Amino acid sequence: MFVFDRSRQSRIGMAEAILCEGKTVETLNHIVAEVARDHSPLLFTRLDPAQFRLLDSTISQSLDYDAVSRTAFLNGACPPLKFGRVAVVTGGSSDRLLALEVCRTLDFLGIQKLLVEDVGVAAIWRVQERMAEINRHEVVVVVAGMEGALASVVGGLSPRPIVALPSSVGYGVAEGGRVALNSMLASCAPGITVVNIDNGYGAACAAFRIIQSINPEIHAEKK
Amino acid sequence: MFVFDRSRQSRIGMAEAILCEGKTVETLNHIVAEVARDHSPLLFTRLDPAQFRLLDSTISQSLDYDAVSRTAFLNGACPPLKFGRVAVVTGGSSDRLLALEVCRTLDFLGIQKLLVEDVGVAAIWRVQERMAEINRHEVVVVVAGMEGALASVVGGLSPRPIVALPSSVGYGVAEGGRVALNSMLASCAPGITVVNIDNGYGAACAAFRIIQSINPEIHAEKK
Amino acid sequence: MFVFDRSRQSRIGMAEAILCEGKTVETLNHIVAEVARDHSPLLFTRLDPAQFRLLDSTISQSLDYDAVSRTAFLNGACPPLKFGRVAVVTGGSSDRLLALEVCRTLDFLGIQKLLVEDVGVAAIWRVQERMAEINRHEVVVVVAGMEGALASVVGGLSPRPIVALPSSVGYGVAEGGRVALNSMLASCAPGITVVNIDNGYGAACAAFRIIQSINPEIHAEKK
Amino acid sequence: MFVFDRSRQSRIGMAEAILCEGKTVETLNHIVAEVARDHSPLLFTRLDPAQFRLLDSTISQSLDYDAVSRTAFLNGACPPLKFGRVAVVTGGSSDRLLALEVCRTLDFLGIQKLLVEDVGVAAIWRVQERMAEINRHEVVVVVAGMEGALASVVGGLSPRPIVALPSSVGYGVAEGGRVALNSMLASCAPGITVVNIDNGYGAACAAFRIIQSINPEIHAEKK
Amino acid sequence: MFVFDRSRQSRIGMAEAILCEGKTVETLNHIVAEVARDHSPLLFTRLDPAQFRLLDSTISQSLDYDAVSRTAFLNGACPPLKFGRVAVVTGGSSDRLLALEVCRTLDFLGIQKLLVEDVGVAAIWRVQERMAEINRHEVVVVVAGMEGALASVVGGLSPRPIVALPSSVGYGVAEGGRVALNSMLASCAPGITVVNIDNGYGAACAAFRIIQSINPEIHAEKK
Amino acid sequence: MFVFDRSRQSRIGMAEAILCEGKTVETLNHIVAEVARDHSPLLFTRLDPAQFRLLDSTISQSLDYDAVSRTAFLNGACPPLKFGRVAVVTGGSSDRLLALEVCRTLDFLGIQKLLVEDVGVAAIWRVQERMAEINRHEVVVVVAGMEGALASVVGGLSPRPIVALPSSVGYGVAEGGRVALNSMLASCAPGITVVNIDNGYGAACAAFRIIQSINPEIHAEKK
Amino acid sequence: MFVFDRSRQSRIGMAEAILCEGKTVETLNHIVAEVARDHSPLLFTRLDPAQFRLLDSTISQSLDYDAVSRTAFLNGACPPLKFGRVAVVTGGSSDRLLALEVCRTLDFLGIQKLLVEDVGVAAIWRVQERMAEINRHEVVVVVAGMEGALASVVGGLSPRPIVALPSSVGYGVAEGGRVALNSMLASCAPGITVVNIDNGYGAACAAFRIIQSINPEIHAEKK
Amino acid sequence: MFVFDRSRQSRIGMAEAILCEGKTVETLNHIVAEVARDHSPLLFTRLDPAQFRLLDSTISQSLDYDAVSRTAFLNGACPPLKFGRVAVVTGGSSDRLLALEVCRTLDFLGIQKLLVEDVGVAAIWRVQERMAEINRHEVVVVVAGMEGALASVVGGLSPRPIVALPSSVGYGVAEGGRVALNSMLASCAPGITVVNIDNGYGAACAAFRIIQSINPEIHAEKK
Repeated sequence: MFVFDRSRQSRIGMAEAILCEGKTVETLNHIVAEVARDHSPLLFTRLDPAQFRLLDSTISQSLDYDAVSRTAFLNGACPPLKFGRVAVVTGGSSDRLLALEVCRTLDFLGIQKLLVEDVGVAAIWRVQERMAEINRHEVVVVVAGMEGALASVVGGLSPRPIVALPSSVGYGVAEGGRVALNSMLASCAPGITVVNIDNGYGAACAAFRIIQSINPEIHAEKK
Repeated sequence: MFVFDRSRQSRIGMAEAILCEGKTVETLNHIVAEVARDHSPLLFTRLDPAQFRLLDSTISQSLDYDAVSRTAFLNGACPPLKFGRVAVVTGGSSDRLLALEVCRTLDFLGIQKLLVEDVGVAAIWRVQERMAEINRHEVVVVVAGMEGALASVVGGLSPRPIVALPSSVGYGVAEGGRVALNSMLASCAPGITVVNIDNGYGAACAAFRIIQSINPEIHAEKK
Repeated sequence: MFVFDRSRQSRIGMAEAILCEGKTVETLNHIVAEVARDHSPLLFTRLDPAQFRLLDSTISQSLDYDAVSRTAFLNGACPPLKFGRVAVVTGGSSDRLLALEVCRTLDFLGIQKLLVEDVGVAAIWRVQERMAEINRHEVVVVVAGMEGALASVVGGLSPRPIVALPSSVGYGVAEGGRVALNSMLASCAPGITVVNIDNGYGAACAAFRIIQSINPEIHAEKK
Repeated sequence: MFVFDRSRQSRIGMAEAILCEGKTVETLNHIVAEVARDHSPLLFTRLDPAQFRLLDSTISQSLDYDAVSRTAFLNGACPPLKFGRVAVVTGGSSDRLLALEVCRTLDFLGIQKLLVEDVGVAAIWRVQERMAEINRHEVVVVVAGMEGALASVVGGLSPRPIVALPSSVGYGVAEGGRVALNSMLASCAPGITVVNIDNGYGAACAAFRIIQSINPEIHAEKK
Repeated sequence: MFVFDRSRQSRIGMAEAILCEGKTVETLNHIVAEVARDHSPLLFTRLDPAQFRLLDSTISQSLDYDAVSRTAFLNGACPPLKFGRVAVVTGGSSDRLLALEVCRTLDFLGIQKLLVEDVGVAAIWRVQERMAEINRHEVVVVVAGMEGALASVVGGLSPRPIVALPSSVGYGVAEGGRVALNSMLASCAPGITVVNIDNGYGAACAAFRIIQSINPEIHAEKK
Repeated sequence: MFVFDRSRQSRIGMAEAILCEGKTVETLNHIVAEVARDHSPLLFTRLDPAQFRLLDSTISQSLDYDAVSRTAFLNGACPPLKFGRVAVVTGGSSDRLLALEVCRTLDFLGIQKLLVEDVGVAAIWRVQERMAEINRHEVVVVVAGMEGALASVVGGLSPRPIVALPSSVGYGVAEGGRVALNSMLASCAPGITVVNIDNGYGAACAAFRIIQSINPEIHAEKK
Repeated sequence: MFVFDRSRQSRIGMAEAILCEGKTVETLNHIVAEVARDHSPLLFTRLDPAQFRLLDSTISQSLDYDAVSRTAFLNGACPPLKFGRVAVVTGGSSDRLLALEVCRTLDFLGIQKLLVEDVGVAAIWRVQERMAEINRHEVVVVVAGMEGALASVVGGLSPRPIVALPSSVGYGVAEGGRVALNSMLASCAPGITVVNIDNGYGAACAAFRIIQSINPEIHAEKK
Repeated sequence: MFVFDRSRQSRIGMAEAILCEGKTVETLNHIVAEVARDHSPLLFTRLDPAQFRLLDSTISQSLDYDAVSRTAFLNGACPPLKFGRVAVVTGGSSDRLLALEVCRTLDFLGIQKLLVEDVGVAAIWRVQERMAEINRHEVVVVVAGMEGALASVVGGLSPRPIVALPSSVGYGVAEGGRVALNSMLASCAPGITVVNIDNGYGAACAAFRIIQSINPEIHAEKK
């Protein structure tokens, strides 16, 4: 039912994670029981409170669960990386929950971060007055819904790797996040990269991969 | 084959226009011949050079044709409106041809305009240093392709009516202009309005309708 | 979590507004508390009754809430503009809730309006017998779902700026409002502009921008 | 390579037709040769002039070809039906070629028709002044591109069966005819039926099926 | 809020109908109260049981409601037409509810019908053994979901006008009914016409328009 | 309401099956009652627990129901085929429920199978170490959601017929299973075939058709 | 630039093939030169006449090229398989070219086939009178464009594995083959499998994989 | 017509680039003339040979043009970065041209690279035997068309930042590159980032941003 990827840490440097959406409670209980014995850190994402409440109590008690970001840690977080920090920037306060998934995943992966919220382009001064601070971080994650224009503006003001994270916040044509996604892909600012809609976990992992390359000694160890 | 809308000027204040794309040369010759006798100004849009060359020579000689914007005037332009000017702002130099269709249509409709080119958001300082000048115009038309973020930024910096005009310039997800269109519709800046992709003629007409409302005496005359 | 756009009124002439859909109750409480001290008028849109009931009671009591249009005012409405009125025209009685969002937003922005309901094109005489009255308003907002043909018909009968507002009312191919949206964008009537599906707030803001341009003294003040 | 449907006339009352688009010249020559011996009337649609020129000369000489509507008759047209006429109504002069395909197919099927052109809704008076005449026909085919609103207006003014035929004329969101198609499907006028984009042949056949039901004696014969 | 289309019966021969989906209870109560005084027959469609229960009891008691087809009659049904019957044919037993909406609408409009269920093409013998009976009806409505192939098969076996009605039954690519809709539009059988997905009301109205043309005396009366 | 396809077994070698989604309880009761008398095996798919509970108790007691795969057998399973086994391979533990629908359908059809779970390409070693075992089966069903890359990898490592079954598991662009479906269709591995999203029943039937061809004697019997 | 997959024959039992569309002439010359030395059979697909003419003459002379199916063999065809034949069935004569790609690929792979053309469902008798003959083949490939209904009808009449191959033939909604593809995926006939639009090569490979499973001795050799 | 972004180098560390597609020759001549005086390096992308030939000869002679990758350098390349190399990996030989755009852009930006071609997943051994070599590079760009599965496989085998670049190579559902794009976005391998279809320039810029962060001294200089 579940095959634990034991060599993942050595292959790609990241601990394994479980996407809980769409899995049965039976499967989740089984996974926790399997991996608990292994003492490896394991991240659960999109674990919603209703699912969490249905887990066996011994299972749920072994998890460090955060209901807002819908994430849980089993066997604690990973050891922190020495260098490198991530700025997580959001367009509006509706992007908060998704940004918190990014932050929790960065916590799990052992990476420091700064959260800069509600600086969307309708009031361009908000992001401009924070740019110097943002640029002191090695990676910038830009979270935005609706038309996602913030990614383009930040991309034009920062020399840093930009991971654009489209949020499904929006209605009408923006419903589901496709407009933000496509805007970010079609951005006129050079070298912006994009992850799937609402994939806060993936944006954090992309940031991790970059930070990992700045920490060569950790890196060397891994290979 | 063609029914001339003689009451259009009195109903909506605008002279008639003919979209040439998809019409046969026979139909275009017929329309020019019909309307020429009427002495009313008539605008031809999307009249491409190949079509123009195939028209009867007496017909083509009666037209004031501009190959770059693919527009032609029959019986001259409309009388100028007293008040009101339009700023036409583009994101990049690829939007030039579409912006010129807007400008020629404004010329035809008797409205003054300013063309501000290549001020896209990848270098945000470019539009910011032109905003005071742009805001001295009663209507702002924003032309942009790719992710169309310029409309949101201008919408956050101008109190003026904004007519956003998506251009089909772009490739990959941006091919055909849907991304720019949807971005403009989903804009986080309040009160932006949008016209069809590549509809430079329509954007100018929308500006005309607004300017017409600022010229009440003309308006009164019409009703 | 929330950055109040204090210069918005002076930049674009409109008070700020908060889209409540997708925001947590914690965020909404925080925003109201922040802005209440400021005494600036603030509009809440898409605040559904369930969310409203969950707000802190001191917060909810400070709001002027209307459950039908799902809008609330904090610190009252904006001062009325001297000139200019808006006609809000709907295709059918299913468009009523969306039209009421337009009307409430116009109330908030200080603009007079007339609501003309249920005059869709299946019985064309209904809109024709109201056109003279509609045309006495400086701006026309046309709300329609299904195939959205009303915008084209009004566009052919009115010299006024037309803001077309597609509604998500409909089923089959019309579900979600894309057909009405695209119909309005592709309209054969010249100079119609369009806002996002179900964006009653945006349609009112677009009307506001136009009316604001007819009130030059107010406008001058602002710059 | 080709199996002639000899029982089609007796099953559905219509002679067979060949869609030429996408067929090789070798296949077309083969079909004509096969059916010519049979003396049954056969219709060719979407036979463009380039294909026609490549046919064997003995083949092409046996065809009654019309390059404008891209149709050809082999073995003449079908015998005329006694009762019933069709009004073919178009929104604009760009719909002319498609309307001519409808008319030629009706000619082939032995049905009388009236062509009413360029009466789109941007100038609603045009269709209104022709409605009494249109309603004297047993079936109405409405051809329209762009937003296709003419079908809804005619549907609200005529008691007759309406066959709506979307044309691919248009650009931006209207390119390819999907907007007209969806508008017609989502029409607020009750009982409008729709055929595929640019399917002039199909619209004529749909009209034929209706007319055939009004000619019971012919009908009885067939069964 | 509601403008009763009093001239509809004389213009198009059909009584008015109200689509209840998306309307508030307040609006529905208002409409019934308005029209009840008029003694004209009125049809309500997509009136689901939950809405029906919320109506004022005096209102709901005045309606002849059928919960399965979600339809109600006010002031009874229309007088029956003398000639013409409709065959309603379904692909599978999942199309039953939609077919019942067609049947109830035909009852309301005064037209006789036969319901032929569950004769989809996976077992082609089922429809073949019913064709003679089906063809004795003046109009055939084909209801199908999934790939909608039944319309093509019936279209190849019947000389009658075919109104194809796509149902939203299906999953995966078929979810929502687009596949059935597009299949019917792209049918290789000539002269099939199509209505919107799940538009049982519209299919019945389309059949009515055809039957009405076979009843010239009724028709004459109307004009 | 329901026409039992009695000749199906002899025509295509498979017992009939009923898709329960979208059917009313009344219809399901009717079908079971009809077929129960026939003693033929019948499979019910997508019969969710809520529907099952609403069935008449005599009806539900006659069914062998499995709530996890949402399938039920009436009159037992079909007689087992002599030769041929199927390997059912999944990308992740979220594909489990869909894979179980495949397995139950194979059980019903009398075919042996092996379930190989959670061997997605993010850890390529997992599927590689199972390939020899998988290739000992005559048919391979590959179940995958998200980007569905497992089908391509298996297709490049197995000489067996591959039936790729896209699952609707996923979010953002992957929501609903279109990405997995299209990936499988566009696979660079030659000769992969695909069934509809979430069509576990169909994948099993496709495997059955292949196995049936390896059992000629059974096959001969059938014709 | 090109890495020859030498172990492909032993892994999956099929010789390698090169998709020529989108490759430069330089790349094609390079591939032929590389593989020619190897003496392994190699198939080229979608090699259009224009590309073929641009190849180096020594290269093009080494190829067995067929311009109609746009395929070429290098180093001859593969040795024939002992058992198993394929029926290739088309809906119309427009599907001929695609069907020929299937046939040439089957020739290359050493498999016998029968081509049954122009038996689409608009005249259902055509396919019905060929079914016994079709069913004598171990695999059936159904090629169809437009609404692709032929696959469902054949699927309901044959016990054989069905590989449905959608063709891009069609216009309007059918343009590009999506309607046929989706129809085939959503088919009501159980166990139909589908390959990508216009993927004649893939359909033949899918048939090959099935036939290979019926030839166990060949198969055993391979592993 | 063109506003040179003089501060771009200091803001984001990259020289400016001009997308030539969609620009007139007049505009391109103007840009080269403007920037030539500035002595800053400038990159031209998607400059196709036809456009290049139409440039003024003094202009075209000042460019270092490569027709295969459709790129040109004005004023040479940028100074090389000290640390960091990029591996550019392609799925098939059809991705060659796009990969060369990546490589030329990297050359322009002063970054070393390795091109690893034709290692798609249909023969998984090809990429596996190159992984150690690939992982010695600080960034991996994966270019793939069709179903784009290579990105997931590489993502599961490399700890490096992955920039996935979907190519528009493919036909049927894969035409235009959407399938590859969506596959990469929905990848089950954690932390893959994606750029627009065919955006080789953007992929190189994304790699540059990452490499720039590993070269802190250069970086410090910039701020």
